[in-house]
Amino acid sequence: MAKASNSVKRPDPPKARIAVLISGGGTNLQAILDAQKGGLLTDGEVTLVISNRSGAFGLERAKNAGVPALTITRKGCGSQEAFEDALMKALDENRTDLIVLAGWLAILSERFTRHYEQRIINIHPALIPSFCGEGFYGLKVHEAALAKGVKVSGATVHYVNEIPDGGAIIAQKAVRVYPGDTPEKLQLRIMKQAEWKLLPKAAQDISRQIRLGAHPGFAKPARGQNE
Amino acid sequence: MAKASNSVKRPDPPKARIAVLISGGGTNLQAILDAQKGGLLTDGEVTLVISNRSGAFGLERAKNAGVPALTITRKGCGSQEAFEDALMKALDENRTDLIVLAGWLAILSERFTRHYEQRIINIHPALIPSFCGEGFYGLKVHEAALAKGVKVSGATVHYVNEIPDGGAIIAQKAVRVYPGDTPEKLQLRIMKQAEWKLLPKAAQDISRQIRLGAHPGFAKPARGQNE
Repeated sequence: MAKASNSVKRPDPPKARIAVLISGGGTNLQAILDAQKGGLLTDGEVTLVISNRSGAFGLERAKNAGVPALTITRKGCGSQEAFEDALMKALDENRTDLIVLAGWLAILSERFTRHYEQRIINIHPALIPSFCGEGFYGLKVHEAALAKGVKVSGATVHYVNEIPDGGAIIAQKAVRVYPGDTPEKLQLRIMKQAEWKLLPKAAQDISRQIRLGAHPGFAKPARGQNE
Repeated sequence: MAKASNSVKRPDPPKARIAVLISGGGTNLQAILDAQKGGLLTDGEVTLVISNRSGAFGLERAKNAGVPALTITRKGCGSQEAFEDALMKALDENRTDLIVLAGWLAILSERFTRHYEQRIINIHPALIPSFCGEGFYGLKVHEAALAKGVKVSGATVHYVNEIPDGGAIIAQKAVRVYPGDTPEKLQLRIMKQAEWKLLPKAAQDISRQIRLGAHPGFAKPARGQNE
């Protein structure tokens, strides 16, 4: 193909294809869908939602947004390997660029995380390395933070590797803890002030990098660009 | 004594007497002295500065502010016990209410910390429980934070007990980490944005409680009040 002149605009590479994995209510999924609708997530689009629990309310949210949604359960698959094979099949059929864990509570093996190295991100409701790792999920994180008496907590978006909450940190936001906070109050404040902002922003930032061919998880040149 | 009528104002109880313990430059000492001069520390006053290193620049800062200053070294005392005996003698002769560790790098035994239970506070340049405990002091804290890739760090004021950085948290402030930060840059930003504000404020808040007889480290009624 002839080299494009400066006056001819190349077509933009396609948007990054995002799969969101959920286990429950899917409020972080909703935040991403809202960002997409509101023009804050412009370089990626949610093209698939997978729940590992049947009947999870997040599946409704996907349906309402017109996004294909699947339920794939560990139990239904019979083994961890078959479970991950089914996930990988669905993710690859979707031509997924970026996997976003948004309240996903199922274990993912090293085989899985290495297969999608630097292409899976997760949100953790604390300032890693505080209150993270095995056993720290959901309200347990906030219970531990309050038990320690911290005055500041927050949320962290990070890449997912084989170590629980051990991958590289992408973004963090601090949130104040107030006297009289319960785990539930703190959880909601951290969701509103940190999680629902950080996760869509990280999805956008990484989608942008993927689209520009500048993301380290994608060795190949930017998809859709003429070379 | 007859009960004072509402029209007769009782004299205020005396200000809390603060001893600041330093090992080096004493920038946190300076922040407290500045707060005192600037009217932000009104319920306490620095009445003694002790350095465990001879020639520490913080001693000059004390001198410039007209505050009595002593040097008491572990080596000069011959043993940990004699060192702490000398500290306790100086602190008690000063009728110290509150001990503020401001860059104090000497070990204090459980005997010492129990003697002044809930009356010693320390500033740590990270958001406890991140990057704290044995071996985390000075630049090492910031080196560890940058190695972990955190996007938010900060400082913590806490009571001192027998566990390094293990006492109850009094106040915390988050500080952003920027790309390209060195341990030195991050250290200075955390000092300016967090430490130099948090420590004087904590000293004031606790001095206020002491003065009002409402501090748990003082079982006796407020000093100087007529009962």
